[in-house]
Amino acid sequence: MTGRSLRLGAGGEFDRLRAMFAALGAAGRDLGDDCALLPVGGRRLAISIDLSLEGVHFRTDWLSFREIGWRATAAALSDLAADGAAPLGVLVSLGVPWNVQRATYLVDVCVLGLAARPVRRSGARPGDGLWVTGRLGGAGLALAGLRTGRGRRLAPALRRRFAHPIPRIAAGRWLARRGGRAMIDISDGLAADAGHLAAASGVRVEIELERIPRWPGVTPLAAARSGEEYELLVALPRSFGTAGARAFRRATGLALTQIGRCTSGRGLRVTDDGRRITPPRGFNHFGVS
Amino acid sequence: MTGRSLRLGAGGEFDRLRAMFAALGAAGRDLGDDCALLPVGGRRLAISIDLSLEGVHFRTDWLSFREIGWRATAAALSDLAADGAAPLGVLVSLGVPWNVQRATYLVDVCVLGLAARPVRRSGARPGDGLWVTGRLGGAGLALAGLRTGRGRRLAPALRRRFAHPIPRIAAGRWLARRGGRAMIDISDGLAADAGHLAAASGVRVEIELERIPRWPGVTPLAAARSGEEYELLVALPRSFGTAGARAFRRATGLALTQIGRCTSGRGLRVTDDGRRITPPRGFNHFGVS
Repeated sequence: MTGRSLRLGAGGEFDRLRAMFAALGAAGRDLGDDCALLPVGGRRLAISIDLSLEGVHFRTDWLSFREIGWRATAAALSDLAADGAAPLGVLVSLGVPWNVQRATYLVDVCVLGLAARPVRRSGARPGDGLWVTGRLGGAGLALAGLRTGRGRRLAPALRRRFAHPIPRIAAGRWLARRGGRAMIDISDGLAADAGHLAAASGVRVEIELERIPRWPGVTPLAAARSGEEYELLVALPRSFGTAGARAFRRATGLALTQIGRCTSGRGLRVTDDGRRITPPRGFNHFGVS
Repeated sequence: MTGRSLRLGAGGEFDRLRAMFAALGAAGRDLGDDCALLPVGGRRLAISIDLSLEGVHFRTDWLSFREIGWRATAAALSDLAADGAAPLGVLVSLGVPWNVQRATYLVDVCVLGLAARPVRRSGARPGDGLWVTGRLGGAGLALAGLRTGRGRRLAPALRRRFAHPIPRIAAGRWLARRGGRAMIDISDGLAADAGHLAAASGVRVEIELERIPRWPGVTPLAAARSGEEYELLVALPRSFGTAGARAFRRATGLALTQIGRCTSGRGLRVTDDGRRITPPRGFNHFGVS
């Protein structure tokens, strides 16, 4: 009658999630995006929930509690940004060890927002350009520094990038208004998230590694793998062009860089200076990638 | 810079929460109810989040995973019931041990609903009657049986009461429509939750212990202490009366029993056959009550 371990089926985290969604039939059809969307009183409510566990998503010897709370909230708000939604409210569950031997902290953040024109992962079309906000690799570089125990010597800007990420709310809303067709935030790593967007949209995504905007000292490959960056990856119609990117920078203060395109086909294709390479793997919450 | 243990201040769970709300100033004014309320497109959205942790809220040797999921979801939906809201959607965070030594499961459930006429904890007035749905003590009785290792011999109805609670959604909506002034679900125990309602409403709550509707074999004192019952405690105007209770039973199939009243004053007053007794303490998630 009672089980001691939960059977989730074979495969990695995403395979298991897909199997769960499939088991839900029609009710699971719209699952797997950054936010759930609910019509309420003629508006479109966007909701997301994001769990941060000590030892999996944070360490209390790397970050202060204030920073842990900020990161957990920013990660959840980043899902609203990826749908082009404006935040309405935040609900938080805290797990705090209390006179117990086994001390594990957790923060679970549920965010609610309104999306006038929600941008899903599934709207990219062949011919769209693929663009990314900001620059990538800082979070991964900081993490590498913290892992080798050199955390105290992280440059302040690098530490801030890791400990105090800024969810791209204004950027997401701007891109939604200006015709963004598909959008995802970079939490699993650019290559992995581009793969999610390609799968959801039913297109092939082609990325030119050398075009990825990077944090100083980060290789293109490391930038494509770095998780928890909380920048936005967005498919925009070809007409958007460099004039669009200039208008974006004026509006948000952020760079917007074309790193590839969507074509007909399936999956992810990555080139490095024109040579095709195996797509780098991303960040896997279930352990080794 | 980084801390190893979170300082929450002195006192029990509720003292600490009150101190946090006070620190938020005006932004924390409406906190502490079963649900947060958000106006969306002319409707009133009710939202709640409820965390269930292995070893604190459930044990995998007492319940199946299906039952653990049901209970966690029912507990969250019960908060919507206590506001008189109709459920719209559910978001779930799961923590599942994965190739790790330290195996702790968790389920965090965020529920969203619409409340046409939300009933808060704070609306009770002197003169209101205090009523409770269903009958109390079954969850505590089942828990006692499970704790002594006699879980396998629990009567099926008792086991169902514990493992498969039914959130009182229809009852909550009916009571909201029929003029319920203040409402709370019984998760911490009747006496403790009556104390919360009294504090939020600024009234004295008087309970006559012998009137509490009870699960067979449960003493009035045990019924007043039993937590995770997920019945509703509601303050109704005096005019509601026994005719109201009969109409409630016809509409919902549940009993509605008057167990006391609200008077001017503060706090909780409990009598047992007319003799005043010390209010029984409730269920405390932070450990010993």
